Amino acid sequence: MIIHIPKGFLFAGICSGIKKDFRKDLGLIFSSSLATVASVFTENSFQASPVIVSRERLKKSGSKTRAILVNSGNANCGLGERGIKDALKISKLLEERLKLKESEILLASTGVIGEPLPVEKICQALPKLVSKLSEDGWEDFAQAIMTTDSKEKISSYAFKVSGKKVSILGFAKGAGMIQPHLATMLAFILTDAQVSARPLKMLLKKAVAESFNRITVEGDTSTNDTVFALANGASGVKLNPDLAEWEEFEKGFIKVCKELARKIVEDGEGATKWFVVQVKGARSESDAEKIARKIANSPLVKTAIYASDPNWGRIIASAGGAGVKFNSSKIKLIFEEPESKRRIVVLKNGAVINEYLRKGEQKAKSILKKSGFKIILELGEGREEFEVLTCDLTEAYIRINAEYRS
Amino acid sequence: MIIHIPKGFLFAGICSGIKKDFRKDLGLIFSSSLATVASVFTENSFQASPVIVSRERLKKSGSKTRAILVNSGNANCGLGERGIKDALKISKLLEERLKLKESEILLASTGVIGEPLPVEKICQALPKLVSKLSEDGWEDFAQAIMTTDSKEKISSYAFKVSGKKVSILGFAKGAGMIQPHLATMLAFILTDAQVSARPLKMLLKKAVAESFNRITVEGDTSTNDTVFALANGASGVKLNPDLAEWEEFEKGFIKVCKELARKIVEDGEGATKWFVVQVKGARSESDAEKIARKIANSPLVKTAIYASDPNWGRIIASAGGAGVKFNSSKIKLIFEEPESKRRIVVLKNGAVINEYLRKGEQKAKSILKKSGFKIILELGEGREEFEVLTCDLTEAYIRINAEYRS
Repeated sequence: MIIHIPKGFLFAGICSGIKKDFRKDLGLIFSSSLATVASVFTENSFQASPVIVSRERLKKSGSKTRAILVNSGNANCGLGERGIKDALKISKLLEERLKLKESEILLASTGVIGEPLPVEKICQALPKLVSKLSEDGWEDFAQAIMTTDSKEKISSYAFKVSGKKVSILGFAKGAGMIQPHLATMLAFILTDAQVSARPLKMLLKKAVAESFNRITVEGDTSTNDTVFALANGASGVKLNPDLAEWEEFEKGFIKVCKELARKIVEDGEGATKWFVVQVKGARSESDAEKIARKIANSPLVKTAIYASDPNWGRIIASAGGAGVKFNSSKIKLIFEEPESKRRIVVLKNGAVINEYLRKGEQKAKSILKKSGFKIILELGEGREEFEVLTCDLTEAYIRINAEYRS
Repeated sequence: MIIHIPKGFLFAGICSGIKKDFRKDLGLIFSSSLATVASVFTENSFQASPVIVSRERLKKSGSKTRAILVNSGNANCGLGERGIKDALKISKLLEERLKLKESEILLASTGVIGEPLPVEKICQALPKLVSKLSEDGWEDFAQAIMTTDSKEKISSYAFKVSGKKVSILGFAKGAGMIQPHLATMLAFILTDAQVSARPLKMLLKKAVAESFNRITVEGDTSTNDTVFALANGASGVKLNPDLAEWEEFEKGFIKVCKELARKIVEDGEGATKWFVVQVKGARSESDAEKIARKIANSPLVKTAIYASDPNWGRIIASAGGAGVKFNSSKIKLIFEEPESKRRIVVLKNGAVINEYLRKGEQKAKSILKKSGFKIILELGEGREEFEVLTCDLTEAYIRINAEYRS
């Protein structure tokens, strides 16, 4: 896979000693010129210190930035004033090293909540981090933002505008606590196109709605979720929604976000397979979303799927318990293999069909044994739909989450 | 433990061959006289055939019944007309054997959804079931309604009114899919008091709200949930809310329901411990309930508790993601040992307190290692509260639910 690195960005990732097992835990993105930035933050009522600080700075800077400092292994959350002070102290030192203004650095953290940041360790590591900045440091950066992720998550896209190459590069981390409106996930989308703040914001919002907001691992949301999109203009290509080229830019940008979202689900804690829950024929998109998320987050559905068991009773029981009223005698349920589009119809008019009872279950099992598949639930109530991407629930999930921190 | 058996009720429980492993799967409660009945059914949009049939019969009979037939191992759900026909065929045969009217038999089923009932097997077993009816058959009945339950769940209470003994006896089953508004749980509360339909209904509603509706195992709800309360008057004691004795009757009735609810959670699939989530100081009870349920159903919280890990970050992250807006800088978080009332304060004003950072974690761990404890979250926003009882999430839960049916 070729990775397209946008011009004018430098990267670094090192181990500063936050993580007990000496994996990389401190990452830095640096833009050689002031970049336009768009952001999406967690909607959790608890917000981590770096989220509070970054929000504030974006207001001051007028949506401009030069650098993003990320640490993993510690969320810097739930610590009150102390958490803010710690974040500011580290940021101030980096500011001096990089000769930037305070508002030109954004922060993100991910990891355990409620333990004070090891500020001294991080401060001591900053000179080394800065010295490692290079165009080739992207893989180190991708590794430095990982927590329980089993691999780094990178996606990129490039195209040409009048002979000039425009690149889009995305990083993400996140393996648990993935659910509506971003949950312990961080993502950074960088481009060397020149884009002004408003269209960048609109584009990010759209891309997030179609990617990160449509995945779920177990329905918990985090205090630290952050997505930053940076456009530094180093390609010399100016883009805006009125130009014909915008379409390809938008397509590439969304593709990068979708790929990262897919990678997050595929790397779901302990997951062995992914599946899409598509709810169609709802009276409203919000009804469809409620049902799709309820099914996708049902531990009973997720464990059945882990066992490749087409236990569709759990799917309809879960749908019926989503808090959306519908006529159960109209529903249709289908398992679909995404590539071949091979389908097994399980229910029609709310009842299991005879053919399924006779020989459908073995066929359904063969679909559920794939590394990924689709559950389609048609309500027959209206025209709206929603789909969500998720993964199964396994003993390994329990092990990871019972042991994490211990 | 003494079990108080209300007069005028007979019980039976046998193996009819629905379950592959030849455990008991068919149970019958028979009242020697027409009993007043109150009921609560699942609010799931999908309703199993026995729920549809029983609802209908209660309308016809004017809230009176003589018998309840229960099968485990098969939910008789998702089968459309066929499911109804199967239920009626079995019921008709029982009706003839017991010489009852159609509307005098109620039905309940629990087990796998979407497999047709083995009607022949059940019909063949009915004569034996009826022949086994006796006052001592209550333990057989309790076993016959179990699915993944590891033990039968029985609770009883008795008191005297003018020298006459009044007994209340409750049975329940349920180990997974336990959540708001009753989920794959069945409960049967029997009394030999004479109570008319309206006060019995009010009492059952109140008791369910304070017991079965305040427990959760994993947040899934079922298509088959049913609670029946039967009062046959065989004690010769007439009770109604205007009498002084009603208070003790109500107390005993609610106690039986609460004990059964506690037993369901303690027997939660794969659970090693129970915990109460109490949310206080909310602006409304519904806000408190949303947050309490979100925490109680969070897989990340449940796995941390399985590991006796006071990972309070997951608790506040979960609370913050419940969809209720609150000021995170006002919250207080406490772990409490229920018996000794020993408390560990973790957070005040939204931040971890210094004493906790110094030496609180070890103390918190010692509380979390108990077989049960309480999490108290004070929002400081108002005066409303809600508490919910739940259990931890373990590898055994996954194993049970991945393998069930296979």
